[in-house]
Amino acid sequence: MSEAAQTLDGWYCLHDFRTVDWTTWKMLSSDERQTAIHEFLSLIEKWNTTQDKKEGSHALYTIVGQKADFMMMILRPTMEELNEIETEFNKTKFAEFLIPAHSYVSVVELSNYLPAGEDPYQNPQILARLYPILPKAKHVCFYPMDKRRQGNDNWYMLPMEERRNLMRSHGMIGRKYAGKVKQIITGSVGFDDYEWGVTLFSDDVLQFKKLVYEMRFDEVSARYGEFGSFFVGNILEEENISTFLHV
Amino acid sequence: MSEAAQTLDGWYCLHDFRTVDWTTWKMLSSDERQTAIHEFLSLIEKWNTTQDKKEGSHALYTIVGQKADFMMMILRPTMEELNEIETEFNKTKFAEFLIPAHSYVSVVELSNYLPAGEDPYQNPQILARLYPILPKAKHVCFYPMDKRRQGNDNWYMLPMEERRNLMRSHGMIGRKYAGKVKQIITGSVGFDDYEWGVTLFSDDVLQFKKLVYEMRFDEVSARYGEFGSFFVGNILEEENISTFLHV
Amino acid sequence: MSEAAQTLDGWYCLHDFRTVDWTTWKMLSSDERQTAIHEFLSLIEKWNTTQDKKEGSHALYTIVGQKADFMMMILRPTMEELNEIETEFNKTKFAEFLIPAHSYVSVVELSNYLPAGEDPYQNPQILARLYPILPKAKHVCFYPMDKRRQGNDNWYMLPMEERRNLMRSHGMIGRKYAGKVKQIITGSVGFDDYEWGVTLFSDDVLQFKKLVYEMRFDEVSARYGEFGSFFVGNILEEENISTFLHV
Amino acid sequence: MSEAAQTLDGWYCLHDFRTVDWTTWKMLSSDERQTAIHEFLSLIEKWNTTQDKKEGSHALYTIVGQKADFMMMILRPTMEELNEIETEFNKTKFAEFLIPAHSYVSVVELSNYLPAGEDPYQNPQILARLYPILPKAKHVCFYPMDKRRQGNDNWYMLPMEERRNLMRSHGMIGRKYAGKVKQIITGSVGFDDYEWGVTLFSDDVLQFKKLVYEMRFDEVSARYGEFGSFFVGNILEEENISTFLHV
Amino acid sequence: MSEAAQTLDGWYCLHDFRTVDWTTWKMLSSDERQTAIHEFLSLIEKWNTTQDKKEGSHALYTIVGQKADFMMMILRPTMEELNEIETEFNKTKFAEFLIPAHSYVSVVELSNYLPAGEDPYQNPQILARLYPILPKAKHVCFYPMDKRRQGNDNWYMLPMEERRNLMRSHGMIGRKYAGKVKQIITGSVGFDDYEWGVTLFSDDVLQFKKLVYEMRFDEVSARYGEFGSFFVGNILEEENISTFLHV
Repeated sequence: MSEAAQTLDGWYCLHDFRTVDWTTWKMLSSDERQTAIHEFLSLIEKWNTTQDKKEGSHALYTIVGQKADFMMMILRPTMEELNEIETEFNKTKFAEFLIPAHSYVSVVELSNYLPAGEDPYQNPQILARLYPILPKAKHVCFYPMDKRRQGNDNWYMLPMEERRNLMRSHGMIGRKYAGKVKQIITGSVGFDDYEWGVTLFSDDVLQFKKLVYEMRFDEVSARYGEFGSFFVGNILEEENISTFLHV
Repeated sequence: MSEAAQTLDGWYCLHDFRTVDWTTWKMLSSDERQTAIHEFLSLIEKWNTTQDKKEGSHALYTIVGQKADFMMMILRPTMEELNEIETEFNKTKFAEFLIPAHSYVSVVELSNYLPAGEDPYQNPQILARLYPILPKAKHVCFYPMDKRRQGNDNWYMLPMEERRNLMRSHGMIGRKYAGKVKQIITGSVGFDDYEWGVTLFSDDVLQFKKLVYEMRFDEVSARYGEFGSFFVGNILEEENISTFLHV
Repeated sequence: MSEAAQTLDGWYCLHDFRTVDWTTWKMLSSDERQTAIHEFLSLIEKWNTTQDKKEGSHALYTIVGQKADFMMMILRPTMEELNEIETEFNKTKFAEFLIPAHSYVSVVELSNYLPAGEDPYQNPQILARLYPILPKAKHVCFYPMDKRRQGNDNWYMLPMEERRNLMRSHGMIGRKYAGKVKQIITGSVGFDDYEWGVTLFSDDVLQFKKLVYEMRFDEVSARYGEFGSFFVGNILEEENISTFLHV
Repeated sequence: MSEAAQTLDGWYCLHDFRTVDWTTWKMLSSDERQTAIHEFLSLIEKWNTTQDKKEGSHALYTIVGQKADFMMMILRPTMEELNEIETEFNKTKFAEFLIPAHSYVSVVELSNYLPAGEDPYQNPQILARLYPILPKAKHVCFYPMDKRRQGNDNWYMLPMEERRNLMRSHGMIGRKYAGKVKQIITGSVGFDDYEWGVTLFSDDVLQFKKLVYEMRFDEVSARYGEFGSFFVGNILEEENISTFLHV
Repeated sequence: MSEAAQTLDGWYCLHDFRTVDWTTWKMLSSDERQTAIHEFLSLIEKWNTTQDKKEGSHALYTIVGQKADFMMMILRPTMEELNEIETEFNKTKFAEFLIPAHSYVSVVELSNYLPAGEDPYQNPQILARLYPILPKAKHVCFYPMDKRRQGNDNWYMLPMEERRNLMRSHGMIGRKYAGKVKQIITGSVGFDDYEWGVTLFSDDVLQFKKLVYEMRFDEVSARYGEFGSFFVGNILEEENISTFLHV
């Protein structure tokens, strides 16, 4: 058996994608819509309070294309909190006019393909990455992925040393985009259908394409990457929610 | 032909996942909702009686993400009883506000990749595993899986001895998690679309990820495992059902 | 080109799976439901008459899990009759409360991987298998399957002699279950998405699992079998239809 | 690069599969249903006129099983005409009670794996095959297919001469069924998801199974064929439409 | 790691496919339908103004078959503008009668498998291709595609020089269709589920089939191409929208 990679795990994460049923939303009176929006904003206010206390974080993005209309990304210390937030949201008035489009359950993960010796949980930089306050970047990109286990291209049969080297060179590409793209890796083995979720943030949406495309030529992706659906979107600031939902 | 593995088979098992239609649920009067909840609780009461008599067992968990809102796992001595429970549940008032999300039909199974000589059905520990009372663990993880039959990675073409060795080393990993994760394997060959269902119980949800990820580096999973959808959830205690369904 | 296997073909076969929409079914008055059930029972009465005349056969089973609530398996001498039965059923009151869940179109088939010389259509045992009256077994199992055509595992590129030998050893396993499991193979090449449908009948549901699992270690299945969805169920006797549909 | 096969292309083709919503259809008054049927028959009358002028052709078949209730196959000289017919049909009263089940867009194609020298467009037999009046056969079979491009089984990497030889031997099988099965090949590269559609017509539905099964042992299908869904059905004569739709 | 191909990126692109719900559309009064059409035409008028200012472009095509009834292809300088257009459209009266059928998010891309030395962004021909005004061709064809990464057929593991040579020969085929087919490649790595979208325009719909089929014999497609769904359609001129929607 190959030596398993060790992971560091932080906050639990729910990506929750929804489509607006504009037809029934328009059937509400303007007052009813305002009440529904107000209730949604109150929920976000609660999430903001949690974030201010560094007990979690969240982000809202509209999604381009028909896969969804918007996405909520929620980070919390426990799986129970994610479940409660989801259920509370589902019971709101606003949720009556939303169609579930996709979701992803995972946990913020740092992969320990690192030299031994250091205790990563003592490292403040690593702690900041395990319990991240999500950036207010203009754009988001989300996709899930697996490491391939197919014929001669079987990641999990490679010796640790080879995986470490491959990941190091893979990480180099990511580092070239430092300052342009912020990347949050969440692990979902045992939690959802792929092994990882990748969430990218950037003020320049084209950097997503450049980064993912450049990585695809790297052996880790070229031979060992299996990718799920890609979602791309634009930030939905709280102050723009009313405009977004105005009909 | 390779020698077939022998299995020990216990109670039949139905995993039944449902999504709540909150919009129509909210349309009921508070009294009607109470009546529906009461009817559901009476059903669970009946299941409790069966469990007290050790004639079956059951568990309820809420599910994180959009795949389902909750899951009922039911164990019974016969396939007919599973069918009756399912039909009885489907006829309740509560079921009118639920959308079927997923189900899985199987039977508790112990695989006999063991040294010969012993009669496993005489072993009280084995009987306890074939007819298990489900634990009240905080979290559940469910996923179905196959053994791969693909090109050079064909589990069913391996000689018995090699499969036995591979399974033994695979079992070692599971044993490392003893006390942290309880695992129930159910066989579904001939009953549902995958060959096995795996149900994990733990008070620490992160142990699911650690266990499944570590196993993935083991040859049995790395070369021979094919995995279906993963569901993860939190225990739904009877006394919390009303709160969960309160709108 | 490899020599094609010859087949013997009997009655045409429709497997028709339906899910009950209990919510709308309950909206009917008790009288309306009785009328609908009565109309359905009259249809079955007609099918019984056909069966008594040995001009076809049929079976009804409830299905465990969410894939369907019940299944009708219908055998008739022509494809037109299957179509008429299906359309007649679809026009009934009862069908208004059913959701189509799955169907399979095929023809009872015996594969002629047999020594030459004998005219199989003269053989009364073979005729009984081509035009079978379906047994009143307690349980049913249905799944479709293909012979694989993939890289080095290409059934259709094997010489006839090798296929014949493989099928002979495969048939041995089936024979071990004689008396426990009755198997009806229906061919669906040109009629539906897989090449064969397999319908198993038994009074002991566990025998399905044992048979299918044991066969999976046989080279014909291990290297050359591709399987679709599995359905498992319990017999729905005519006299129990009213109870099954009672709400 | 391998030399591309040349094709001869005739009429454009739409296969349009629909399911009847019997529940809402029954809600109409008998008069309303008659009006809707009459409007549909008028449309067919128009199609008949076109066919009489040899400016197109069409066929109607009921489909066995739940994939669809009936299928319209329409041939026309231009893609615009197919689109207009489809839109005109969609606007009828009848279409309000139909659920789109499947469709396929293609063009009648003859593959030019033939000896050079002859100008096929001068050949009246070939013209009759490019612009065919569809036969009134009792049964239809439709399925789409691709030529495989997978590892060592890559049709498009074979030299022209090898493809020509393989197709010649493949064609032999088809010729054995002359008089029993009429086959129309339509090309859909660039038009729909598979590369070809195959439509078979026969008065003996069993010949579809025999033909497709025998071909599967031929190397062209065994190594290089990828098949989509199969639909099988019975002719729906104009004079039987009212009976088919009678409730 | 193989050297990554450089790309030139132009306008962002949304392909938005919709199906008309004719049944509910017919329920509107003629006046209401006119109002809805008028609102849609006003939106197009705004898009025309943008196009006149060369700040974007758009095209409307009806789609043949059941995959969709029409498609809007929208080009804009930013992802935010695509999102706004989509949301604005979704809020219109007309959109209440449309069912989302498919969408694709990408960016106009030129692949830089070219000799070095030249600055492509100085080249007016290249700029015209990055910011194209969509042609008024009679027909459109759209499909997404990937470069394969499978066993020995792994595009992303090939050295740059080999990819460049393969693409050059591939480009030759495209050039043979110059004047007959206009091709717009949009990159979707990081934006949608495939790596590229291909949109073809032609006054002769058969050229789509000829071009795509001929390319399939080229090694780039034969060994390395993976294709998604194909959509084909006819131009929907603004002056024909009222007729198209007339019921």
